[in-house]
Formats: sequence, C-alpha cells, structure tokens
Amino acid sequence: MLRMDYSGRQKKFQQTLVDEELDGFVVTHPANLRYLCGYTSSNGLLLLLAGRRVFFTDGRYTEQAREEVKGARVVIAKGPLMLDAAKFIGKLSSAAVGFEADLTTVATAKQMRELVHRRIEWKPTSGLIMRQRMIKDGAELKLIRDAVKLGAKVYEHAAKAIGPGVREVEVAGKLEFAARQAGADGMSFDTIVAAGKRGALPHGRASTQAIPRHGFVVVDSGVILRGYCSDMTRTVHVGRVSRVEREWYAAVLEAQLVGIAAVRPGVPAGEVDEAVRSALRKAKLDRYFTHSTGHGVGLEIHEPPRLGKEQPERLEPGMVVTIEPGIYVPGKGGIRIEDMVVVTGNGCEVLTPVTKELIEVKAS
Amino acid sequence: MLRMDYSGRQKKFQQTLVDEELDGFVVTHPANLRYLCGYTSSNGLLLLLAGRRVFFTDGRYTEQAREEVKGARVVIAKGPLMLDAAKFIGKLSSAAVGFEADLTTVATAKQMRELVHRRIEWKPTSGLIMRQRMIKDGAELKLIRDAVKLGAKVYEHAAKAIGPGVREVEVAGKLEFAARQAGADGMSFDTIVAAGKRGALPHGRASTQAIPRHGFVVVDSGVILRGYCSDMTRTVHVGRVSRVEREWYAAVLEAQLVGIAAVRPGVPAGEVDEAVRSALRKAKLDRYFTHSTGHGVGLEIHEPPRLGKEQPERLEPGMVVTIEPGIYVPGKGGIRIEDMVVVTGNGCEVLTPVTKELIEVKAS
Repeated sequence: MLRMDYSGRQKKFQQTLVDEELDGFVVTHPANLRYLCGYTSSNGLLLLLAGRRVFFTDGRYTEQAREEVKGARVVIAKGPLMLDAAKFIGKLSSAAVGFEADLTTVATAKQMRELVHRRIEWKPTSGLIMRQRMIKDGAELKLIRDAVKLGAKVYEHAAKAIGPGVREVEVAGKLEFAARQAGADGMSFDTIVAAGKRGALPHGRASTQAIPRHGFVVVDSGVILRGYCSDMTRTVHVGRVSRVEREWYAAVLEAQLVGIAAVRPGVPAGEVDEAVRSALRKAKLDRYFTHSTGHGVGLEIHEPPRLGKEQPERLEPGMVVTIEPGIYVPGKGGIRIEDMVVVTGNGCEVLTPVTKELIEVKAS
Repeated sequence: MLRMDYSGRQKKFQQTLVDEELDGFVVTHPANLRYLCGYTSSNGLLLLLAGRRVFFTDGRYTEQAREEVKGARVVIAKGPLMLDAAKFIGKLSSAAVGFEADLTTVATAKQMRELVHRRIEWKPTSGLIMRQRMIKDGAELKLIRDAVKLGAKVYEHAAKAIGPGVREVEVAGKLEFAARQAGADGMSFDTIVAAGKRGALPHGRASTQAIPRHGFVVVDSGVILRGYCSDMTRTVHVGRVSRVEREWYAAVLEAQLVGIAAVRPGVPAGEVDEAVRSALRKAKLDRYFTHSTGHGVGLEIHEPPRLGKEQPERLEPGMVVTIEPGIYVPGKGGIRIEDMVVVTGNGCEVLTPVTKELIEVKAS
C-alpha cells in the first residue's frame, strides 16, 4: 500500500496559515479532508489550530474515521460538527480562523459567526488548500498514473462495443462495468457517449439513442481509483469518413498536439489555450470550439488550473491537466480528443496511453 | 412524454415571493432549476422578477437550454452568469432579491453584493423552493414510481449475483450495468454492497473484497430515471442463519414495518423516527441504530423532510420518504431494510415492490 505523506501535507499547510496570519482553519470540503488527513467519507470537519488538529464526524463514520484519519484526534459529534468545533475555537481568548469562502455556504457562515464569541474573527479565504493540491506529490502522481491506465483500459472495452444500432447507454454500461470489475471506486463523472448529431452537445451524457450508421461518436469518460480521477476523450467514426470529416478530425488532433507542445513550466495557462485556439483558427474551425482547452485533475475531476482564455496562472512541474480541444458543429456532430498530461521540468509527459489515430468502425 | 407543469410550479413560486415580500429571486441549484424550468444540465441561473423570467447559461449549453427551458427567456452569457443577471437586476431602481443561503457560497454572495447598486437588497432565504418540491405533484409521482420500479428490477439482478467468493464490486457492477441497459440516467448514489463485517459500516460502498461464506450482505442502491431518484436497501444472508441473526433480522424488519405504519399526514417526522427507535429498543438493539429513520427523495437523493430524532416537520400527502432502520454491530455485520413510501390522504403507500423476507443464499 502506497503511503501518503499526510504529516508533510499538514506541516506545509500549517506554514501557509502562518504566512496568511491565521491562528486556525476549518476544513469541510471532502477532497480537502482526504488530501490533508486521509478521511474518505462525507460529513467531516478538520480543525487546525497551532499545535493541535482535531477531526470531527458523526456516529455513522466512527470506525472509518478511527481507521483513516491521520495526524488529528478524532471526535464523534452528536449534532452539527461546527457546533463541536466552535467549542474548541471558543476556548481561545482571541483568534483569526480561516474558512473556505468558495466552499462554505452563506447559511453555514452565519451559523459559524453565531457559535463563537466576538474575539474570534472568521476570515474568508480562497484556494489555500487547492493551491497546495495543484502540485501533485510523488504518491499522488503514482495514483493518478494508475487511474489513467485503468481509464484507458476500460475505454478500450467501450470502443469495441461501438457500432451502428448499438445504444449509447450500452457503450457507457460496458465501460462502467469494466471499471467496477477492475476495482474502481466509481466514475469520475457521468460517462459521455454522444453519437451523430448528439455529438454537437459537448456534454452529451450517454442516452438511449442508437448510434447511427454514419458519423462521429464522442466518448468522454473517467474512473476514480483509490480516490484519484482519470479523464480522457476519444472520437471514433462509424461508416465511411468523408473528406471534410477527415479534415475536421485532423484539425482537432493537430490543435491537441499543439496544445501538448505548449505545456511547460512557467507558461501561463491562457497561452496553452491560445495555442490550441489559434491552431483551430487556421483551420477556420475555432468558432466551433466553445469551451476551454483543459483543467487540472486530481482528487477532483475539475481542479485548477483552468486552461482557458487569458488565464494568467503559470504552469508548474507536478501539475496534472487535460488538453481537450473539440469542435461541435450543430446538426452535424462533434469531435473531441483529450489526454491527461503532467507538467515536467522542461515540458510535459502525456499520461493517456491510447492511440489518437482516426478509427473507422464499419457500418455493417 | 409526460408533461411537467412548469408554468404551475413557476406561478406557485412567484406567489411565495409575494408572500415573502421579495421582488425577485435567483436560482442556481441544479435540482431547483430542473424543477422550476426543466433545465437538466449544469451552470444555469434562473432570475425571477415580477412578470419576467430570464434563464442564463454559457455557450456549451446553448442548444440544450433552448430545447429544455420552459417559461423563461434564454440568455447565453459570455462570463460568470451572475454578471449578466446583475445587469438585469441593476435596471430596477430598488428591489429585495432573494437567494438560497444554504446553496450559495460566501464567495458568490460577495460577488453578488459587489455587482449591483446599493438599493438592491440581497435577502438570504432557506428552503423556499425545497418546501414546494417536498410535496410531489402528479407527474413527479409517476416518474418516481417508474424510478422505484426500475431500482427494484436492477436490484434483483444484483441479488442473483450474491454468493460466497463473489467480490462486492461485481455485485454492484451487475446492478449498475442493468440500470444502464434499462436507460437509467445514472445511479442516485455510490452503490453500497457491504458483506460480512463490512456491513457494520452503514455507508460501505462496494469494495473489491470477496463476500465471505457466512454473514449478511447489505445492498443499498438507487437509480436516476428521467431525473428522479430511487433508493432501496435489502439485506440477504449467505450461509446458514444462526438463531441470533434471525432474531436481529426480524427485529429490524419489525421496526421497519412499525415505521411504515406510523407514516400518515399530520404526524411529525420525529414521531416516525421514535416509533422505529422504540421498536428496536424493545429488542435491545437501539444502540446499534446509529442514523435517522429516513429522508425525502425526489430530484435529489436526500431531500427534506428528514425523519430523525425530534424533527418537528409534519408529514403531508404527496411527500415521498424512505423508511430505513438498520443495525450495525461492530465486528459482526449489519442489517438494513429500506423502502420508499408516498404519504397518502390517510397513511402511506409502499412503493418498493421487493420482498422483505429473509433470503438465505447457499454457501456452496
């Protein structure tokens, strides 16, 4: 079993708290809890104070928390976790306690204010843990590689199932069943199988519609393996490919390769997006590219950095991102090609081990 | 195709706004958007103003929004949806605009305040749409019945797969594959298959562990069909049942039947929970019942009302809830039995059409 360096992660985050002049911090977001202390279930709260870490959950998760949580004392709360956490915080004579403003609701924040005395100051923060999570450590990269490999393997199952008359959900079902059989925790998002005209919906979840005798089929899928997500897209063609369809495919593939070539440390995320967009512009297809070029992947399927227009965030070694240009032509269909890559010291390494050559499935 | 009464739902909610002295309301929660205007995807915002309804989304969902959204003008926003919505709101000379405090983050609320002029007052509200959604209308009940039926059908597939040496994920995989084949949108939560000692984890998602030759296997699963969730749990036994195991099972089943018998209009939710708890108390097993008796189900898998200790919310006809007592004996295993029921004029109707008799699977 791979050892996660929870103590190193906690130490690093405690340093962030010092830098941000915070005396404490409340974490409730599941992925952040898993990252910092190993807890994998719901309804948890990690309270970090100088020299003390306390983890709260409820009676349903007693066994699980005792088994999983590293580097924090486990407390089983009877009611809302924040109530118990507030008791600890309230013992301090005064403190600035951070919380995650983009992961905490207005209602919870109100409760937080009401539960502690007036010399406790709640400080809204944004992305403090995510900034740390953005750079994957060695153990995480190992797990991500495993997830990507499994994602590729189960995609091959689905690819074999594609053919005219087969319903999209059957393709998705085969892929998901293979993932289960292989021990995946689950899928990292609703599997997309979008055939023919449905391919023009960038997020066309598998429907009960049968795959037509002619056209592209977009398959976008990911697994979760030991907590980490994979994400990949391939587009195959059913029936004979027309000249224009072949050109479209080549243009998307070219844009994707240009995007991969643009990834290296120090480059602003928006520059990778612009490289991809400009490749599609040359092919006069940029107006059909209606989303961003990519996003970070890790414990969550969508993490920073976002590789979108004018995003200033600079890439750093250890970031794991998708490169996924696509075109969506209303009434015709869609093409998307997506790999996961890890930023290295001088460029990037493509993780997804599946061919991007155009595959033609016979119509009969 | 079943017609949803979006216009009726919108009209009813507009009346709520009048009652609450609100001039407008911003909806962003996906299930609430689907309920009020039929939109089924992500990143949507519905702005309700007196006599005007505007729906915002981004370029990825242009086609889908135009096809799905009912009773509101569709606007495709270039940036954050709230920015465009604020422009509309800002045209009013003054207004009190409600938003969902328990579904809106502190960061978004800050953005909202900054985007409009000072005579627009943002009013945090809680559960205004949920209160309406809690009582299911005729079309919803039809869809829920269909989802529950499908959930039962795919459970039977899983039940057949249970046996010693079979890995939990295989059971879950068969269930999920059957759901896909039948055209489910997806699963309403991570399928739970918890065998032997793992059954003592109330939320033991299917693992790669093999089912032992002796013990209970808890299967808790649900499908999403045309947007609506199902939820059911059955517990079967592998190998010969011991006397004490049989008593435990009988006690949980008795508690579940007592719970169902307690459901009727006007009864506080906490009373149903107490009926169940007291039945388990008689069997001296109440200390192993570590969660609530049930919860509402609809577009989301966990909706109000919560059937928990001392919950004052009174049941009303049209509410759909689960009744799901369970016991979790550390080191031994778990038993849970769960049905979905709809509250009727004078009691309730059990929706889940699967036997609750104790089923023994041969160990060889």
